[in-house]
Amino acid sequence: MLGLMQDWPLLCHRIIEHAAKYHGTQEVITRSVEGPIHRTNYAEIHARALKVSQRLERDGIKLGDRVATIAWNTWRHLEVWYGIMGIGAICHTVNPRLFPEQIAWIINHAQDRVVMTDITFVPVLEKIAGDLPSVERYIVLTDRAHMPQTTLKNAVAYEDWIAEADGKFEWKNFDENTAAAMCYTSGTTGDPKGVVYHHRGAYLLAVGNVITCGMGKHPVYLWTLPMFHCNGWCFPWTLSIVAGTHVCLRAVRAAPIFNAIADHKVTHLCGAPIVMSTLLNAPAEEKKPLPHLVQFATAAAPPPEAVLAAMKDAGFNVTHLYGLTETYGPASINEWHGEREALGPPDQAAKKARQGVRYPTLEGLDVLDPETMQPVPRDGSTLGEVMFRGNVVMKGYLKNKVASEKAFSGGWFHSGDLGVVHPDGYIQLKDRSKDIIISGGENISSIEVEDALLKHPSVLHAAVVARPDEKWGETPCAFVERKKGHNKTTERELVAWCRDMLAHYKCPRHIVFCELPKTSTGKIQKFKLRERAKGVE
Amino acid sequence: MLGLMQDWPLLCHRIIEHAAKYHGTQEVITRSVEGPIHRTNYAEIHARALKVSQRLERDGIKLGDRVATIAWNTWRHLEVWYGIMGIGAICHTVNPRLFPEQIAWIINHAQDRVVMTDITFVPVLEKIAGDLPSVERYIVLTDRAHMPQTTLKNAVAYEDWIAEADGKFEWKNFDENTAAAMCYTSGTTGDPKGVVYHHRGAYLLAVGNVITCGMGKHPVYLWTLPMFHCNGWCFPWTLSIVAGTHVCLRAVRAAPIFNAIADHKVTHLCGAPIVMSTLLNAPAEEKKPLPHLVQFATAAAPPPEAVLAAMKDAGFNVTHLYGLTETYGPASINEWHGEREALGPPDQAAKKARQGVRYPTLEGLDVLDPETMQPVPRDGSTLGEVMFRGNVVMKGYLKNKVASEKAFSGGWFHSGDLGVVHPDGYIQLKDRSKDIIISGGENISSIEVEDALLKHPSVLHAAVVARPDEKWGETPCAFVERKKGHNKTTERELVAWCRDMLAHYKCPRHIVFCELPKTSTGKIQKFKLRERAKGVE
Repeated sequence: MLGLMQDWPLLCHRIIEHAAKYHGTQEVITRSVEGPIHRTNYAEIHARALKVSQRLERDGIKLGDRVATIAWNTWRHLEVWYGIMGIGAICHTVNPRLFPEQIAWIINHAQDRVVMTDITFVPVLEKIAGDLPSVERYIVLTDRAHMPQTTLKNAVAYEDWIAEADGKFEWKNFDENTAAAMCYTSGTTGDPKGVVYHHRGAYLLAVGNVITCGMGKHPVYLWTLPMFHCNGWCFPWTLSIVAGTHVCLRAVRAAPIFNAIADHKVTHLCGAPIVMSTLLNAPAEEKKPLPHLVQFATAAAPPPEAVLAAMKDAGFNVTHLYGLTETYGPASINEWHGEREALGPPDQAAKKARQGVRYPTLEGLDVLDPETMQPVPRDGSTLGEVMFRGNVVMKGYLKNKVASEKAFSGGWFHSGDLGVVHPDGYIQLKDRSKDIIISGGENISSIEVEDALLKHPSVLHAAVVARPDEKWGETPCAFVERKKGHNKTTERELVAWCRDMLAHYKCPRHIVFCELPKTSTGKIQKFKLRERAKGVE
Repeated sequence: MLGLMQDWPLLCHRIIEHAAKYHGTQEVITRSVEGPIHRTNYAEIHARALKVSQRLERDGIKLGDRVATIAWNTWRHLEVWYGIMGIGAICHTVNPRLFPEQIAWIINHAQDRVVMTDITFVPVLEKIAGDLPSVERYIVLTDRAHMPQTTLKNAVAYEDWIAEADGKFEWKNFDENTAAAMCYTSGTTGDPKGVVYHHRGAYLLAVGNVITCGMGKHPVYLWTLPMFHCNGWCFPWTLSIVAGTHVCLRAVRAAPIFNAIADHKVTHLCGAPIVMSTLLNAPAEEKKPLPHLVQFATAAAPPPEAVLAAMKDAGFNVTHLYGLTETYGPASINEWHGEREALGPPDQAAKKARQGVRYPTLEGLDVLDPETMQPVPRDGSTLGEVMFRGNVVMKGYLKNKVASEKAFSGGWFHSGDLGVVHPDGYIQLKDRSKDIIISGGENISSIEVEDALLKHPSVLHAAVVARPDEKWGETPCAFVERKKGHNKTTERELVAWCRDMLAHYKCPRHIVFCELPKTSTGKIQKFKLRERAKGVE
């Protein structure tokens, strides 16, 4: 019926191309804690990304090949990202906080051909390089003056390497279902799994962030979230498509965050709830007044009521997002409707703690009975498994058919999170399936117990896990980090506090005061605590 | 390399589905000039759109079938739009201001099976219905109480018709390259051409509007632009994806616009420059103070300097967009960078009059030499033809292979607009190819002459066309509409005014004072003036 057919794929690197052409002077700022502030802009980032593509192609890197990065948030990390995907290769962001043997395992599994690394990680790589046969070359993200002596194969300073390219290079089109990036799940159980992100999905999640976070034009975004973590939730693309300012930050500590917000008039930032408590509990001398209402998007765990209330008082508007590595980052949002402002603070916080509804660019989000694959009743109480499907859900794990098929059984991606659906259609997580504590046949949500603990004025962080118990099967065991100056708060006091708020069987039988083990992105590592809980008397 | 493949098409009606589920109480308001204000919301619109789909399917309408609408901006127009495309049928919006024989021509060309019409157009349709063999049924967009007696075949009141559906219906997925909507170009030369819009392109243009217009969350949009005109530039989808408030307006006159802005705290509206002059030249008693800075997106013709300056003073921020029916609406934007605010008002206006740069969701926009298909130099003076390519460019004209191939020769869509590219990459229209006046071998841009005339304090509208001339080939002939109370301004005065601003050969040889003929969307119909110019002595 129609005339000529044309095919214009959605490709994520085209975003920086557009931004460079028409918003070329928009800044990309990188701040270390003490050092000078580095400033560049979209035009430069794009020009250098083209050189990266050109240079990789000369090194024989082809569509589908994997190139690893082990790097913090800097302008160089941003530009190599675009440069790698620009030729259809896959940018494999490695979490630098992993143990060396874990890094070796995933580089071997991904069969990375090139590794680009911050100077800091050269010694670690030297230790494991003998066990990385797929890697042909190491590129150190620095210039000649700072290049260390190293035994790494074909090692070269990044600035020397790209200087060999003249940048007269054009990105070609390829299928939008080509992989653009990948990263590995943290692997709290079993081997890590490689989650592959495709151009189409990443483009649509980037657009989804623009819509759900109300990014407007030219926002100023502070990179507290690591770029290596789940594509930096796709914000490398989100920011560029709205021609915002990237403010890259290495150290996620209170003082540099407050300084950056004040200096650059930051409008948006993202982070786990732990970033919020870091800000709230900062010493007064590190805090600075905010230049305006700052949008804070949080994910990874439901924000506790006390934290939400304090963030509001501190001048942040908190938006609660939810997603997984497998969903390209956040794929659901707690949409906040004006009428909720009429509720009292505890009711508001209870509503805001819900994970909410799907992004407009996610096609399906529901809570299903994993046995029957039927949706649970919209009653706010029937537990099921949270499941996703659509463009912003990964297509599978790299070279792991068994895990991919299991994750997608019945046509939905199984999140492993247990939740309910409220009558208004908002979903709420009750727990990770493995974090549910089953005591005397009753399910206890570890989140509910943690929430009660976090309301106590002395508690900074809390994690509750199952402790094996002969009589009850399991009982709740709490690990608690107290705020500075609150070291006198006792176990008895906290148990009594919980008994005022929870059914008795839900209250912790044991409370251990300690610093909680956290991942590089601030998630509490419950698997470690579950091990420790076995020995708690 | 990967696990399961899944296909999640981008479908425009999914946008209202999402909005209804999670922003169900967001309002859709319809205002007539005098009558009561009608209020409904996304949940209702979606529920009724499902009934439209269900009812159409029962009437045998299938994927690819055309259903015409002849209607003003109302909630019913919005909901049938979604209902038609929801089953893969094509919503053919007919311009109600066309002559009856033109309406008949395009309904026959489109082979519309159903016509949905506002009550106002029943008499017109009755006159031509005998010549519309493809139409099986007429649905009058009203309820039983208002249903007129009519001879139209199988005529039914819309509310009765949808009441026969229970709404228990689900939209199925189909290919995103399925057509969603269509409309006919105004056809100033030759037969009108049917421009077909596909789901993928419309979805991406809707997203493009969100980004370029900085829509944020929950904007309040005033429908001064007709929905039937070029998909309402895709704003039916743009607004719904950001869960904004639709304020539908029938009469594009100053008083109802100012009233609507004040009553509903409108944040955004769109319109041709003529809407701006309507607002600016309104009598003082019709004007109302704006509740805040109002975003006004204009397209169709470059906004004249005087109008831009006056709009700024009146509290509007004008964004200049550019596109054609064939590009789904606006596909380029005059991106406004902060540093331009330092320029003086005439320089700002000169910069703002440029058509600008491509949308992030348009893959290609350039000015090419149509002979060689090579880009013109970026010098701001070499003339070429403006060309487009990408997802938000139509795939072709309905049943018109010859015109489609001609339009896409060399792989680019030929706009027929003549323009230049400035050193900063911004394009600027100099004229429609057919609007260029060639006088003594010199090209005269009609826009340039109009701009000069519009700067005169007495001139409300101006249009300049070629008048055949024995000696010079052509000379510029101006048609001018004077402002109220300025009827004493003479031809001689305006010619002298132009001579101060333009090379003499560019000044109008003739000036005719009259009301200018305009299309339903406010575009001046130059083809009529070209005819009249032949007889001007």
